[in-house]
Amino acid sequence: MLREAIYHRPKQNWAYAYDNKTIHLRVRTKRGEADEAFVIAGDKYAWEQTRYVVPMKPLASDELFDYWEAEAVPPLRRLKYGFRFRSGNEELYMSEKGFSSVEPENYLTLFEFPFLNPADVFEPPAWVKDAVFYQIFPERFANGDSSLNPAGTLPWGGAPTPTNFFGGDLQGVIDHLDHLVDLGVNAIYFNPLFEATTNHKYDTKDYMKVDPRFGSNEKLKELVDACHAKGIRVLLDAVFNHSGKEFPPFVDVADKGPDSPFADWFHVREFPLRVENGIPTYDTFGFEPIMPKLNTENAEVKRYLLDVARYWIEEVGIDGWRLDVANEVDHAFWRELRSVVKGLNPEAYILGEIWHDSIAWLQGDQFDAVMNYPVTEAVLDFFARGVIEAVPFANTIGNQLAAYPRQVVEASFNLLGSHDTPRLLTVCGEDERRMKLATLFQLTFPGTPSIYYGDEVGMNGGGDPHCRGCMVWEKDKQNKELFEFFAAAIRLRHNHEALRSASFKFLVANGGLLVYERLSSDNSERLVVAMNVSEQPVEVVLPRATAGQSWTPIFGEALVEETGGPMKAELAAFGYSIWRC
Amino acid sequence: MLREAIYHRPKQNWAYAYDNKTIHLRVRTKRGEADEAFVIAGDKYAWEQTRYVVPMKPLASDELFDYWEAEAVPPLRRLKYGFRFRSGNEELYMSEKGFSSVEPENYLTLFEFPFLNPADVFEPPAWVKDAVFYQIFPERFANGDSSLNPAGTLPWGGAPTPTNFFGGDLQGVIDHLDHLVDLGVNAIYFNPLFEATTNHKYDTKDYMKVDPRFGSNEKLKELVDACHAKGIRVLLDAVFNHSGKEFPPFVDVADKGPDSPFADWFHVREFPLRVENGIPTYDTFGFEPIMPKLNTENAEVKRYLLDVARYWIEEVGIDGWRLDVANEVDHAFWRELRSVVKGLNPEAYILGEIWHDSIAWLQGDQFDAVMNYPVTEAVLDFFARGVIEAVPFANTIGNQLAAYPRQVVEASFNLLGSHDTPRLLTVCGEDERRMKLATLFQLTFPGTPSIYYGDEVGMNGGGDPHCRGCMVWEKDKQNKELFEFFAAAIRLRHNHEALRSASFKFLVANGGLLVYERLSSDNSERLVVAMNVSEQPVEVVLPRATAGQSWTPIFGEALVEETGGPMKAELAAFGYSIWRC
Repeated sequence: MLREAIYHRPKQNWAYAYDNKTIHLRVRTKRGEADEAFVIAGDKYAWEQTRYVVPMKPLASDELFDYWEAEAVPPLRRLKYGFRFRSGNEELYMSEKGFSSVEPENYLTLFEFPFLNPADVFEPPAWVKDAVFYQIFPERFANGDSSLNPAGTLPWGGAPTPTNFFGGDLQGVIDHLDHLVDLGVNAIYFNPLFEATTNHKYDTKDYMKVDPRFGSNEKLKELVDACHAKGIRVLLDAVFNHSGKEFPPFVDVADKGPDSPFADWFHVREFPLRVENGIPTYDTFGFEPIMPKLNTENAEVKRYLLDVARYWIEEVGIDGWRLDVANEVDHAFWRELRSVVKGLNPEAYILGEIWHDSIAWLQGDQFDAVMNYPVTEAVLDFFARGVIEAVPFANTIGNQLAAYPRQVVEASFNLLGSHDTPRLLTVCGEDERRMKLATLFQLTFPGTPSIYYGDEVGMNGGGDPHCRGCMVWEKDKQNKELFEFFAAAIRLRHNHEALRSASFKFLVANGGLLVYERLSSDNSERLVVAMNVSEQPVEVVLPRATAGQSWTPIFGEALVEETGGPMKAELAAFGYSIWRC
Repeated sequence: MLREAIYHRPKQNWAYAYDNKTIHLRVRTKRGEADEAFVIAGDKYAWEQTRYVVPMKPLASDELFDYWEAEAVPPLRRLKYGFRFRSGNEELYMSEKGFSSVEPENYLTLFEFPFLNPADVFEPPAWVKDAVFYQIFPERFANGDSSLNPAGTLPWGGAPTPTNFFGGDLQGVIDHLDHLVDLGVNAIYFNPLFEATTNHKYDTKDYMKVDPRFGSNEKLKELVDACHAKGIRVLLDAVFNHSGKEFPPFVDVADKGPDSPFADWFHVREFPLRVENGIPTYDTFGFEPIMPKLNTENAEVKRYLLDVARYWIEEVGIDGWRLDVANEVDHAFWRELRSVVKGLNPEAYILGEIWHDSIAWLQGDQFDAVMNYPVTEAVLDFFARGVIEAVPFANTIGNQLAAYPRQVVEASFNLLGSHDTPRLLTVCGEDERRMKLATLFQLTFPGTPSIYYGDEVGMNGGGDPHCRGCMVWEKDKQNKELFEFFAAAIRLRHNHEALRSASFKFLVANGGLLVYERLSSDNSERLVVAMNVSEQPVEVVLPRATAGQSWTPIFGEALVEETGGPMKAELAAFGYSIWRC
């Protein structure tokens, strides 16, 4: 066996507590090489009496590796363990000290999960995996109170630019909550609502005040209450990496320089504040002078921002925070934020904006989830852009499923587009068939899906600012059929826990054909999803049904042939179907 | 190139901040395969203008892998990066998305170190890497006040058993500080000093009180002051995983059961507390009924233990804590402890007792170091037991050097024996030649060395309790020559920063011959250490001297032949020598 391929290191995604009793152990081997893998486990203080062997199950595969997983429930919460692999006639053992062809004599050389302490168990809020989010960019969702319109507000439906305004506000959201209910979503993620100068509000002026163009703090409370009354949770955007140029402490520093009492609230490399050759003399988001980076290591800044986090939970009752540019803020600050937020509401959802591998933030001490852009990119490449086939797609997804603890997979925020990316329909080249398949995958994949406002009625648009168009409310301009598809797929997800569980297994990945199995957490329900991302019809052979049961189509239009042998179905070009056993 | 062998994942030991400006990047490749490795780096917000390439240096190797390292000092503290490898004519690129034979077109697929925030920089106290520790088991070091002797105290020098007492105390330590000064150590790690029933005191009764058999709180203050006056730092043992059976809260729970106000201070599985078939009905250290595990998630317990940590720093001025059974306590508690301890004294040393891979505790948010038993074991196997040759020894050491960030290597606590293991001389089969080589390696290796009391005068003894014998103070029973060797090697370490830096490179590992190079942090001093762990004399060929300089022996007895060609030396059986360029 290829020893160089085998990897395990305790903690992270390799050895972690799933709940207060259960430890998950994972290991990887070269793809296609190991026939079996086992965990050898026991209590190090009574090894001989407690040693036992657990077979590992295949968890996922990517291009290079197979990933294996086993559960252990050590009665005294202590676990010493090693691995055994079999490939044909070859046996291989792995301890912390390396490899051997026989079981290590000294069990003390094995790996260790020393003690399962509940304080270290990573438990994202249970509701998240049952949620379907809807992302609202407030300036463009609905204008419900024209008296709040900023000067120069344009008629609803014009072309978005980086600087124009259309008068979207909180009353507009309140007025249209039934649209969300009809769609079936039960959580909203709002782009920033606090006072700022831009239309996107990522340049905060006052973190304690709803932007007057959107409404008031009271109006937000009314909105949150209205949402809660309809079973909809609300997530706000915490822009704590940087403030805006009108944030009073920044104004003071710009004015008084090093003598400002707020001089240490920012990262100033050289006074006076200025921009030279396009580079501000103070740290910013990107090179954006109006977004000065906050010094989240300064005790006053910490106190201020933690007060902000506290205020909107206590006063308005929001259900969590989405953290903007979360990867550029120090881990120490995020640990404090988690402590404050979870202290107020253990069920609050803490979602970080990170586009890359996020394991360092997803160990239970910082975020509950991140915006899962690596999955986004794979879905877009396969379903929307059609630039990769099913095999590399399945490899990327397999890699992602293995890259994080199971609870992270269950709570990850799966989006296909946002205010920062071109709209899904546009990425699909306006092909609704591709858009439906991408969305169906999103809604049948573990993690919480998020729909970007307007995608469901067929809005299109390229990258920022074109993806930030005004929501289409005129019925005759809405794509009713697309909306019905979204609503039906969301209903399906709500009705079948198997579509929300972490159990996900590819059965077929071939050309444009993708077939995968979904099991409910208690194994009582078994679904198979098939999609054909191609112009040619394709035949799908379903796996053997569970004994005494048979396959019933529950979604999609595939024909089914009962031939006496294995059940077969034909998927039309860009067809899809879901069967239940 | 073998893609399965190549590994990198940001943070941990692979991508970390070394100081407020510098990011270290590491990657591994199959051993002997890559001729060169490079980092391709830049600022993601201005990639085209900032992209540059850094050659990586070989850091270390183990049996299967070569490890490469590069430094990056991004001017705006943001780093996007990927890797390029060359093996012969083959080029390979690695991004977060995998491998490619050409540089990835989309730099956004590269790895990311999003921002170097000082709050997340792991900085162990600077003094630690310049320290040489001396571990004292207080009951057995010196009896300086016989009025404190416990009942039944035996005459000094008797055979240690698990339960007997010889009257060691703090006055005894004060009386013998000159021994430590003569030896050259500048830090003491004390096994527990607080009131307890056993001779080892790992069953605490009162965490706020020095055991009356050892002295008083005032006496400890006097001792610490006396140490500080001589430039010796003091580390105490924090037994926070469990208390003793006479700890009043435990007595109360044993007495009142679930009605005790302290019922939640422990982990009781079943009341009343009892032992059934050797297994206590409450969690303990191992299966030891007199060591009930403390519930460090209970707010009162946390407050109590954090007060203990605070008290001894504030009142007595200790320089840090060694944390007993540190791996079985929750990470959340250790984070709070670090915050309290560093808040009082940023230069305090927090040392965890962990015997296995400890990366999860060494990220800057918990410990400064762990007791480095993996290195201990390798040193004992090669030098002391002679059961492995130089090649596997060098592989294990190489693996350890690559397994942690550089600052962890610099501050790790390197011991060759403790109260928990047989004494070094005994492991060496009483062969002082082996003991000297093991010690010389320890004292010329990165990290802070710790001498177990009495080893330096030739004490022997098997595992607990035999390793806990009374310190030999009679001059004629002390091994004077061994003491001089220890003192000389310690002086050598103090006099040459190159022996304390993290720069460590094996030049030869062959049979019993080990040669390695040590460079000072500023590269101004270059030393070569050679040891012959065999009965046969062996020839050593020194590397080419730095231009304009030559090799001078500074330690050991090797002959040097100047032949006009490369400098050669002969090492006698179990000989050693150190040269300076």
